Amino acid sequence: MNTLELQAPYLIFLGDAEDLLMAKVAKGIAHWRPEKCVAQLRLKEAKADLGLPEMSIAAAAEAGAKTFVLGLAPIGGNLPKEWISILIEAMEAGLDIASGLHMKLADIPELVDTALRTGQTLFDVRVPKGEMVCGTGLPRSGKRLLSVGTDCCVGKMFTTLAIHKEMEKRGINATFRATGQTGILIEGNGVPIDAVVSDFIAGMVETLSPDNVENHWDIIEGQGSLFHPAYAGVSLGLLHGAQADVLIICHEAGRIQMDSMEGYVVPDINKVIEVNLAMGAVTNPNIRLGGISLNTVNLSHEEALREIAHLEEKFGVPVVDPVRTGVASIVDQLENL
Amino acid sequence: MNTLELQAPYLIFLGDAEDLLMAKVAKGIAHWRPEKCVAQLRLKEAKADLGLPEMSIAAAAEAGAKTFVLGLAPIGGNLPKEWISILIEAMEAGLDIASGLHMKLADIPELVDTALRTGQTLFDVRVPKGEMVCGTGLPRSGKRLLSVGTDCCVGKMFTTLAIHKEMEKRGINATFRATGQTGILIEGNGVPIDAVVSDFIAGMVETLSPDNVENHWDIIEGQGSLFHPAYAGVSLGLLHGAQADVLIICHEAGRIQMDSMEGYVVPDINKVIEVNLAMGAVTNPNIRLGGISLNTVNLSHEEALREIAHLEEKFGVPVVDPVRTGVASIVDQLENL
Repeated sequence: MNTLELQAPYLIFLGDAEDLLMAKVAKGIAHWRPEKCVAQLRLKEAKADLGLPEMSIAAAAEAGAKTFVLGLAPIGGNLPKEWISILIEAMEAGLDIASGLHMKLADIPELVDTALRTGQTLFDVRVPKGEMVCGTGLPRSGKRLLSVGTDCCVGKMFTTLAIHKEMEKRGINATFRATGQTGILIEGNGVPIDAVVSDFIAGMVETLSPDNVENHWDIIEGQGSLFHPAYAGVSLGLLHGAQADVLIICHEAGRIQMDSMEGYVVPDINKVIEVNLAMGAVTNPNIRLGGISLNTVNLSHEEALREIAHLEEKFGVPVVDPVRTGVASIVDQLENL
Repeated sequence: MNTLELQAPYLIFLGDAEDLLMAKVAKGIAHWRPEKCVAQLRLKEAKADLGLPEMSIAAAAEAGAKTFVLGLAPIGGNLPKEWISILIEAMEAGLDIASGLHMKLADIPELVDTALRTGQTLFDVRVPKGEMVCGTGLPRSGKRLLSVGTDCCVGKMFTTLAIHKEMEKRGINATFRATGQTGILIEGNGVPIDAVVSDFIAGMVETLSPDNVENHWDIIEGQGSLFHPAYAGVSLGLLHGAQADVLIICHEAGRIQMDSMEGYVVPDINKVIEVNLAMGAVTNPNIRLGGISLNTVNLSHEEALREIAHLEEKFGVPVVDPVRTGVASIVDQLENL
């Protein structure tokens, strides 16, 4: 594929993380792709624990690890000196390095030198790889589902990973298509779409989700929101490039203000559905709403179930909270159509 | 400004262009900014003529030229060897070099060496300059007009340049804000928005069009179309970042198929107005339609006037063809409101 591609299995590095909030990427990989995680490596100060076997670099290499994954962001954003020597040791033991940090591995001369010397690869998953292409808008075979949001950080990645997992469990032919750095580290490949030059947004999503057999589903991770004052361009390019057959609307129950956007209120679900379907129809006239994924983390269990029932009644589609209810009802309906 | 900034006046290079179609950028600069053009330089094979004084590099430098502008694209896209020595001569004479070519000046070692040696600057206007920032969506002072299209290549740049010129003629405080390479070469600064990383589209348009005095107009060049399967992301980021008070819809009369997009028809003007106003309202709830700019190049004069009258009747706003009728009626209405 014309994208990044990490080699599994992984040795997950937790650094000195005090808890799994500080190591969200590591937690995501261990949760969604446990079969790709051979071990964890922690500094002695670390309290975060993925429950994976504890291994040194040498032991992990011996056990077959192919990629050393930086599963957390260091405080301050810069790689501590002692981490750099750990990364060098990992490459010397035959592992590639993957990172979702803002700071690029490729900008650290010692790492570049070691990569050249050892023949290992540095994967900065925030840096798009391969030839950049413009969209064609030409129809593609196979089926596509895209998560779209009322805002950023409402659960679009989680929703698509959950739907993909449910499909795999049922033996449905499906692929998760990652568009953000955490999704890419979880899946092992993808396109960091917000880092692509804007001319190529739709084209790179077309590349990410190519022609496929008729019964295959691409489950595409959404980004941002058409109503987000900073990132809507990314969301619209993604919507057009995906040519989605099915949209899943993601929303956080009770959120009033948009994430980090002073003065911006979260738009009505109704309006978000309507505009996404209208704009998505530009490249796929058969686009339809496949369900609503409601993040109910701030509601009691009773409130959550009541709100889910209310939205099901109102919109006539399956409504789920992937954490609380699972996504089976959405996949049921995709199977029945 | 946190953008490109060329020094005027210019020596316009026409190479071996047979006609002004091959030198569209040169023609645009000479048409819209004649006061910035001190002279033209042509190879002996050239037939294209801007009607500017003919000068050697030395004579142009003597006459005050500050920037040598590559006003055409060489056939095949590569810079001919003999042009490179001309560019070197220009830098040695104290001129900067500006180019809108796909091929970057900064990728040609002889030019980079000469720039270092002479202290002159190479401006690749397709390469964004300055710090990239995300959008904030915060309201800005001053007034903003943006051209949006039913498709690519319908006259968005021409329309905004014409409105800006009409405003200047009337003594209205206004600035043209360029977002594409030709516009940037004409104005001397701007942001090549389709070359910006997608996370920063809206933010860089905010930077391009900062707070201003209350009676000042930024006349912002639009790009693409919200209905374009490849470039809509750019258009939406631009719409949100511009926080436009006034939209001018640009359309080519009689165009049925979208430019270079197999299977895509040009959307109804009606729908384009409706969706642009709805999406623009996300960052500026007071957005309104200020007029329609109709490219009637393919109609007879009678047909054109009939179509313009028909659209004025239908939409209740001034409708112009900037070439055929001028844009006075649009500016009249902006002055009256």
